[in-house]
Amino acid sequence: MIMKLFIIKIGGNVIDEEGLLSSFLTYFSSLSENKILIHGGGKIASEISRQLGIEPKIVDGRRITDAETIKVVQMVYGGLINKNIVALLQARNCNAIGLTGADANIILAKKRAVISPSRGGAGGGAVDFGLVGDIEKVNSEKIFALLNSGFTPVIAPLTHDGRGQLLNTNADTMASAISVAMSGSAEVNLIYCFEKSGVLRNVNDETSVIEKMNFSEYEKYKSEGIINKGMIPKLDNAFDAIKHGVRSVIICHARDLNKVIAGKQSGTYLN
Amino acid sequence: MIMKLFIIKIGGNVIDEEGLLSSFLTYFSSLSENKILIHGGGKIASEISRQLGIEPKIVDGRRITDAETIKVVQMVYGGLINKNIVALLQARNCNAIGLTGADANIILAKKRAVISPSRGGAGGGAVDFGLVGDIEKVNSEKIFALLNSGFTPVIAPLTHDGRGQLLNTNADTMASAISVAMSGSAEVNLIYCFEKSGVLRNVNDETSVIEKMNFSEYEKYKSEGIINKGMIPKLDNAFDAIKHGVRSVIICHARDLNKVIAGKQSGTYLN
Repeated sequence: MIMKLFIIKIGGNVIDEEGLLSSFLTYFSSLSENKILIHGGGKIASEISRQLGIEPKIVDGRRITDAETIKVVQMVYGGLINKNIVALLQARNCNAIGLTGADANIILAKKRAVISPSRGGAGGGAVDFGLVGDIEKVNSEKIFALLNSGFTPVIAPLTHDGRGQLLNTNADTMASAISVAMSGSAEVNLIYCFEKSGVLRNVNDETSVIEKMNFSEYEKYKSEGIINKGMIPKLDNAFDAIKHGVRSVIICHARDLNKVIAGKQSGTYLN
Repeated sequence: MIMKLFIIKIGGNVIDEEGLLSSFLTYFSSLSENKILIHGGGKIASEISRQLGIEPKIVDGRRITDAETIKVVQMVYGGLINKNIVALLQARNCNAIGLTGADANIILAKKRAVISPSRGGAGGGAVDFGLVGDIEKVNSEKIFALLNSGFTPVIAPLTHDGRGQLLNTNADTMASAISVAMSGSAEVNLIYCFEKSGVLRNVNDETSVIEKMNFSEYEKYKSEGIINKGMIPKLDNAFDAIKHGVRSVIICHARDLNKVIAGKQSGTYLN
């Protein structure tokens, strides 16, 4: 029988709220199927960065990662947040194992090339995102080996280049790429949990959730300006997963994970 | 056939020196037997702590770990140093996987009780080391599962209490406790690598290495004051391993790991 696998991504704004994180992790632990958790943490990284005297630079929602900043995100994503989540899951009898893309060589990436003005760099200038990684390969067999040993991978948004350098990689993109790679040998359900009730028609109205959306509807919403800004890269990642064999993608509030697991309508279902 | 296993501990002063760390990791990677690396990192933790405005407090060589300091050591040990070493080993074709005691629940610990004056707290006062963990249990079967999947564990000096709290634990003690736990099912060779040529008769003379030492000789050297200070807890840990079934313990300079692996005399051999 093919393995049923839940891949769940939790955003940085949820990690910040202790009570919300706690109930989310309790729901996550209660899932009896194989599962993987992928987390962000950009807000805390920016705070620690400032405390260390390094002013964060964000362009188009992506962090410019210089030699000092990669150390900060290694510390915050790989050490502080990842290990806190692992310890909290262990306390809930979930045998979590914290990983970056370098650990067990699960995710290889390539340092992103400098984006030249002609390719649409912000403000018309060239953008060098620095030590940011674009995923080249997910070694899904290593992740399956960990799942088959009874471990629950908890993955921080860091990859490596295979030559000794860690790279900063967007957590939404990682969740999508891992889901696609695992889909070859498992029935993957991808759930993006964040601090909103789903994809909203009106960003100021939490009751305006779009319950179901296919790719052509997404294109229409985009052209009408109903879906914009930060939701676009998230949904691009989500539809990319659908196109490449992931069985279902749901975008929901972290507090609603229990409902989604129970098969109740909550958030936005992509098809 | 019983598994042959090398457990190697590398000290914080070696991690600081890029060239020395690089050659050490090359030697480590070249070991064809099963292996585990345990690292320290106290010096870097103190530096980052100061950068964050938290003055490190060390009593009897052990760090007082308050609620802010545990975050610092999680970041530095679990994120910065551990992931750097993992990425550098991956670049050397060693399939490293970075862990704390919380990951895969490999090491459970108990928060250390406050040391009362009558039990010899420094300066005669009670000492509260804070979030420091004394090891209660090493789940060696989880570590064997990782080794049997082809992974090389790289372990940071952090444990957890099973109730969601990470704890700071001395890396020498972790290396000894892991070695003892693994000895039940493997032939364990424990190597402590640091910045000196071995246990020295005269701390200022690198040529005064004690080549071989048993427990009664150790007791004699201690009573004569030849072995003192920081070497005592290290050697207590080392002899504890010998007493509990670890096959051999060697204390050597990190630059000499290749010699030790090749079976050449280097450093101090405990028996």
